[in-house]
Amino acid sequence: MKNSSYLYLQFADRIEKQIKSGVLNVGDKLPSIREVCAETGYSMSTVSKAYYEIESRSLIESRPQSGYYVSNISARTISEPSASSPILSSANIEREDLIDLVYGDMRAKDVTMLSLGFPSNELLPIAKLNKGMIQAMRQLPNSGTSYEEIQGNTNLRKEIARWSFTWGGALTEEDIITTPGCITAISHCLMTLTKPGDTIITESPVYFGVLQLAKSLGLYVMELPTNMTTGIELDALKKALSTKKVKACVLMSNFSNPSGSMMPNEHKIEVVRLMEFYNIPLIEDDIHGDLYFGSSRPTNCKTYDESGIVLCCSSVSKSLAPGYRVGWVSPGKFKKEILRTKLYHTISSPTITHEVVGDFLKNGRYENHLRKIRQILNHNCNNYINTVLESFPKGTKVSQPQGGFFLWVELDSKIDTADLYHLAMKHQISIAPGRIFSLQDQFSNCMRLSFGLPWTNELRQSIQTLGKLIS
Amino acid sequence: MKNSSYLYLQFADRIEKQIKSGVLNVGDKLPSIREVCAETGYSMSTVSKAYYEIESRSLIESRPQSGYYVSNISARTISEPSASSPILSSANIEREDLIDLVYGDMRAKDVTMLSLGFPSNELLPIAKLNKGMIQAMRQLPNSGTSYEEIQGNTNLRKEIARWSFTWGGALTEEDIITTPGCITAISHCLMTLTKPGDTIITESPVYFGVLQLAKSLGLYVMELPTNMTTGIELDALKKALSTKKVKACVLMSNFSNPSGSMMPNEHKIEVVRLMEFYNIPLIEDDIHGDLYFGSSRPTNCKTYDESGIVLCCSSVSKSLAPGYRVGWVSPGKFKKEILRTKLYHTISSPTITHEVVGDFLKNGRYENHLRKIRQILNHNCNNYINTVLESFPKGTKVSQPQGGFFLWVELDSKIDTADLYHLAMKHQISIAPGRIFSLQDQFSNCMRLSFGLPWTNELRQSIQTLGKLIS
Repeated sequence: MKNSSYLYLQFADRIEKQIKSGVLNVGDKLPSIREVCAETGYSMSTVSKAYYEIESRSLIESRPQSGYYVSNISARTISEPSASSPILSSANIEREDLIDLVYGDMRAKDVTMLSLGFPSNELLPIAKLNKGMIQAMRQLPNSGTSYEEIQGNTNLRKEIARWSFTWGGALTEEDIITTPGCITAISHCLMTLTKPGDTIITESPVYFGVLQLAKSLGLYVMELPTNMTTGIELDALKKALSTKKVKACVLMSNFSNPSGSMMPNEHKIEVVRLMEFYNIPLIEDDIHGDLYFGSSRPTNCKTYDESGIVLCCSSVSKSLAPGYRVGWVSPGKFKKEILRTKLYHTISSPTITHEVVGDFLKNGRYENHLRKIRQILNHNCNNYINTVLESFPKGTKVSQPQGGFFLWVELDSKIDTADLYHLAMKHQISIAPGRIFSLQDQFSNCMRLSFGLPWTNELRQSIQTLGKLIS
Repeated sequence: MKNSSYLYLQFADRIEKQIKSGVLNVGDKLPSIREVCAETGYSMSTVSKAYYEIESRSLIESRPQSGYYVSNISARTISEPSASSPILSSANIEREDLIDLVYGDMRAKDVTMLSLGFPSNELLPIAKLNKGMIQAMRQLPNSGTSYEEIQGNTNLRKEIARWSFTWGGALTEEDIITTPGCITAISHCLMTLTKPGDTIITESPVYFGVLQLAKSLGLYVMELPTNMTTGIELDALKKALSTKKVKACVLMSNFSNPSGSMMPNEHKIEVVRLMEFYNIPLIEDDIHGDLYFGSSRPTNCKTYDESGIVLCCSSVSKSLAPGYRVGWVSPGKFKKEILRTKLYHTISSPTITHEVVGDFLKNGRYENHLRKIRQILNHNCNNYINTVLESFPKGTKVSQPQGGFFLWVELDSKIDTADLYHLAMKHQISIAPGRIFSLQDQFSNCMRLSFGLPWTNELRQSIQTLGKLIS
């Protein structure tokens, strides 16, 4: 990320040094962008990009109508949540009462939903999407009332393929199959690649939707030790793959749900190499990949996939319009089989919403929108971390995600976040207790907080209330 | 149907007698509606309903700008296709090359698609749906970009529940779960109720989509003997259920795909009784139920289901807008399990199109639209039957569906419709060969013709060409 061939990165690195060395202290106001331009001779664009970059490193924060200040995260030594060490066996899923509860809350009004992982309405470009909808009705044959072709809307597939350059891919429209959402893409992959009684590998903690899907398909899940910053541990992965009992692996290489971890490039490369070596397909969920806080789009495992062993799934449900049901999979060498599974279980995606998203991707609007949503999520994330550090008991550990929607918070081991969930709901606050992210008896002192809600005073108070409840 | 407490039915019965007894002969013009009113004192409405009823019995046909004529079907003794007698074992599915071919045609241009079972665009109320779309964008929170609640759009569920009165049901919105299309509803039911290696029962011939779904889920299919007029044979069903090897049954009680058969009410009642007795769930596909040619909506098996053993699936894909992906299931006592399967594999249906259809159902527009589409399908059906009888070799047997989209045609046993398929494609005509509707070596001299295309001279010529090719 710190490729100093760029002026703005050189400048950002310099400011970082000043902060780390104490030249700039917590709360100090940075010179305005104009002032820096006048002093240094850099362009406005270079300086704003540099400030944006430093902000994305959580070193400074912008205050509306005031300017940039050295953030208090910069000085604190934040404790990262511990790596997981689940028992290395595969467990079949028994309980989901807690999940039913958390999902049941979706309809509850007047509850601060720190539990749910999707963008708040304020973040969505609704007016532009509505325009797109009217245009799609005009453009599509029969206004989108007919079936699409089985593989999916051609415009959308072309744009997703074009978009793959952002993560170093070079897909064509033939490499994409659309689905009504990312979870349906993962479901189709699992249905195609496994049969009941098979075992799959996941991270731990892992998105509970994957656990539920596995249960529904009669699969055993082997959760592997996972580092909260760098993702699944490679030694454990290698060992598990070498047992030859595993039929597929499901991973989020970028801003994983719930831990927020991002696999370094070397890890991604090594994971792909291992999957190829053992000839076991990798189902990659890259749904958060576009929501990075850094200066450029991270790669994913598909970037390094030359043999077609990676099935990369994604959607716009986290970035654009969950209700449109627009997802896809880039199925590598399993295209024919996935296409049949789609035909058998889905036939066709919703024609009109897929056209709208294809069009939105085409005209650069998606890029503009992402720039905005990334900046907001980054701000929110910093504010959440600050408030958690201020109001939660000493010893609280917090992840420092470089993108996505989620903070992973680890409390004192005596605290049970399932109890906290019930307590917090009495104060109209919903959290996602850690134990729903594992089949094993783990993470009972952890919780996932979504920072997809817009940052307000009420939200700050909700987090402060959580802190008091924990104390 | 011939409930003579209605004036129009009394009058229709009288005309039927005149035709059957030879008072009216093939080609005779009937008096105009005005003339009949003047003669009989009946109202315009009574006489037109009577004529519509007689037409639905295939006894008369209307010619545009001319009037009603005694149809030549009325006089011919049409041979119904033979009942099926598959070997009573369960077979796992091996080949689908032919299906891939027929589906591959979907994109082909300039081909007369007698193979495909959905309404042609001319039959869809596209302008009205577009208006609904604009209204839905205004009405829905966030213009439909957000997730719905898991069970589905409340307005839509209310309207589907209200609509159940047409088939004698009394559902509430709590009895409905929406899905993105009917096949996804059936898929969710099968995933919930079966596991790989289980056996399900179907009619024979059976919609190939059900066979593909079964294959994808690792299920064995036991095809039962089926009468082309009255549907699955009850003795065979009873025998199969009593073996206790069966985990679910999938049936179309109305205008079955492909045979066109409709189970009489007594059969529907007996089927539900049997399923209850053996405690085996019935997945009913009632997608054609609203497309009847008679005077009233037929019941379905769900009508007679008091214990919740029937999961009734349907959609608007055959009647309103395939591309909208609006389907549903009324899951009876399996609601909790089906809801979980939906949550795991789909999460949420496309928000906006489900709202549009809910609204369309609410304002009586659906009823008006159905009246129109039913009349057109009925006309088409009669014209198809006439043309087949005129141009196909003697001995050809044709079903006489009372609704739906499909004619089932049985040719001389020496003819292979798979060969005919290839031959016809050279003349830009696509048919659905009979053998794709069974896992066994059956129906190779049969084919399914869809009468969803608008009736034109070109279409007549296509059917005549088919006749020549067969000769």
